[in-house]
Amino acid sequence: MENPIISLLTDFGLGSPYVGALRGVLLSIDRQLVLADICHEIPAHDILAGAFALSSAWRYFPPGTVHLAVVDPGVGGTRRPLAAQVGDHFFVGPDNGLLTLLADQGWVKAAHLIEPQNLGLYFPHPTFHGRDLFAPAAARLAQGGPLEHLGPPVDSLERLPLTPPRREGATLKATILDIDRFGNVTTNITPALLEELAPGPHPTRLALPGLEILPWAETYSLGPRDHLFVLWGSAGFLEVALDRASAALRIHASRGAELTLDLA
Amino acid sequence: MENPIISLLTDFGLGSPYVGALRGVLLSIDRQLVLADICHEIPAHDILAGAFALSSAWRYFPPGTVHLAVVDPGVGGTRRPLAAQVGDHFFVGPDNGLLTLLADQGWVKAAHLIEPQNLGLYFPHPTFHGRDLFAPAAARLAQGGPLEHLGPPVDSLERLPLTPPRREGATLKATILDIDRFGNVTTNITPALLEELAPGPHPTRLALPGLEILPWAETYSLGPRDHLFVLWGSAGFLEVALDRASAALRIHASRGAELTLDLA
Amino acid sequence: MENPIISLLTDFGLGSPYVGALRGVLLSIDRQLVLADICHEIPAHDILAGAFALSSAWRYFPPGTVHLAVVDPGVGGTRRPLAAQVGDHFFVGPDNGLLTLLADQGWVKAAHLIEPQNLGLYFPHPTFHGRDLFAPAAARLAQGGPLEHLGPPVDSLERLPLTPPRREGATLKATILDIDRFGNVTTNITPALLEELAPGPHPTRLALPGLEILPWAETYSLGPRDHLFVLWGSAGFLEVALDRASAALRIHASRGAELTLDLA
Repeated sequence: MENPIISLLTDFGLGSPYVGALRGVLLSIDRQLVLADICHEIPAHDILAGAFALSSAWRYFPPGTVHLAVVDPGVGGTRRPLAAQVGDHFFVGPDNGLLTLLADQGWVKAAHLIEPQNLGLYFPHPTFHGRDLFAPAAARLAQGGPLEHLGPPVDSLERLPLTPPRREGATLKATILDIDRFGNVTTNITPALLEELAPGPHPTRLALPGLEILPWAETYSLGPRDHLFVLWGSAGFLEVALDRASAALRIHASRGAELTLDLA
Repeated sequence: MENPIISLLTDFGLGSPYVGALRGVLLSIDRQLVLADICHEIPAHDILAGAFALSSAWRYFPPGTVHLAVVDPGVGGTRRPLAAQVGDHFFVGPDNGLLTLLADQGWVKAAHLIEPQNLGLYFPHPTFHGRDLFAPAAARLAQGGPLEHLGPPVDSLERLPLTPPRREGATLKATILDIDRFGNVTTNITPALLEELAPGPHPTRLALPGLEILPWAETYSLGPRDHLFVLWGSAGFLEVALDRASAALRIHASRGAELTLDLA
Repeated sequence: MENPIISLLTDFGLGSPYVGALRGVLLSIDRQLVLADICHEIPAHDILAGAFALSSAWRYFPPGTVHLAVVDPGVGGTRRPLAAQVGDHFFVGPDNGLLTLLADQGWVKAAHLIEPQNLGLYFPHPTFHGRDLFAPAAARLAQGGPLEHLGPPVDSLERLPLTPPRREGATLKATILDIDRFGNVTTNITPALLEELAPGPHPTRLALPGLEILPWAETYSLGPRDHLFVLWGSAGFLEVALDRASAALRIHASRGAELTLDLA
């Protein structure tokens, strides 16, 4: 059988030994597991950042991959531990909105509660479900255990209150999903949504309110020098960018905030 | 034979290529090795932080794991290169106190000097024993080489001068072992030690000197809002915490410092 | 067949999901690949830092390793996508100077353009060649695909304008290649170059302009306390260092800058 793959995404930070403990638990269950990090520097407790990172990377992994995603400010409280089928992949983590973007896109096929006793686990530490509950569940799924054996089905998932892009007169209102280390500002506008909200000649003419038109560029280095521009980013969303400088600093963007664009 | 596992813990930082060189050396010796990071962002030269991270993560790995731990401000000087059996795991690194917490808990079963010539190594670079001495020794142990073949036994290990928790009248004096990225403050008080130092009704009533009682919580999100509280953390020690905020900032805690708690 | 190894070096940062997407692509092509990070915290767009990290780590990997190195400010523009044979290893990445140090040392044996259609790739995203072009090319090479199948040979590579160390009267002019997290300042002076530029009794007496002689030390902890010193670092270059403190801060060093040393 092929070695099963588990991707890891957390807000534990790489300065802590917490991710090491996760890896140890997973390799203790099965040292054939292939562990592949997506990101562990999700800002502490930032579920939106985790949801975006997961939605950007998951589809590049092979079918059957289990994505172990733990950004879990409510650990040990009332939020439910969850395992889900996402496309032909799996997700394991807290039911707190981490799957929002994938659910919005229709990828979530089934979701089940994780009941510790179904994994032979009776006393997961209440502050570290990543290590004591989610990692064992992920290993079980990676080894081919059926989703339904983890617990009863869950009807509806928690979602973050993300406003979809909308049109108001001659403006578009979007949400900023991410700002990367290069300062590129990723919105939640897809090509299909832009076509729907602003049909007309291509490319759509966009501007920041009261400012000049934002030229379109195909890639960062082909944008105008020292001038904000827009492009379709590699995650499939509209980005506002600057060549070799931070668009986010220039326009004071922050993750989760609303971005207004004028249809010029 | 099962693939041998080597965990990696250093203060090299993830901004440097030093960890990459370690991985290269290990895979050059044996590409079947499974390499699993515990942490590489231990603050530079901070042996206590390394000792805590190691003690938090090691036991979650499977028996036979070799923990390659290099926080080594004295590299190339008089400190001894060491290989040790810790429970049914192995440790390879400098003899400078990195094993203090494991030795205090009685886990160190045997320790041997690493003599370069026993590994066929004659000129390890004096500033990078991680790459040129410890990594080859770790690979040898992971492949099943006996500890005794590395060098003569070592009687006693270097230990950090960590003060165990103690009682002084109506106060407890503890040491702060760690502060994580969430700002949780981990002390060196275990449940057994608290019972010994402060026998009586449960839960023990604790307070910061001159301040209100610290409520007990089972998990971070169940603690009171905007109020410091205590809980038993996932590493098995008493922690002082705040829900979704930094207890360390609130009480000006720093790693290695003493923490006084009133028995209220 | 032995599991092929791909090392990864990027400036994507560990706070982003971009490296996760790379890993997903590679494992989707072949889950037998062994992925080993060199560094992902190369400062954004800093080709010199990437070139130095690559040159410090590559040789420790086993023959046949493919080094996937993506520091690519010109992605999607006119810079060429490249695959090269470096010693008995391979390199895949942009032709923008990342191979400068290896080319200067004569390690580059052959270089070929990567043409997407030779990999069956027709629409790599213009902003993310790491994911859509370089990763598939690296996997192909790791699986044994010949370099020549990727595209036509390339005659000469882009190189960074690095000034080799030179002598001017009684001074040496060198370039600062790197500053590590410990504050050690790595120059581009090798033992052979120092012998050539300043023949004479050993060890060569060096000083910072107008300051005291820099003593030689064998290793950091054997240097004088609170006094700058020089040593031969583990990457094979002359370093200026301070024991347990930052030489870079003391002498205001920055990567890529010139460093003048007096022959005293």
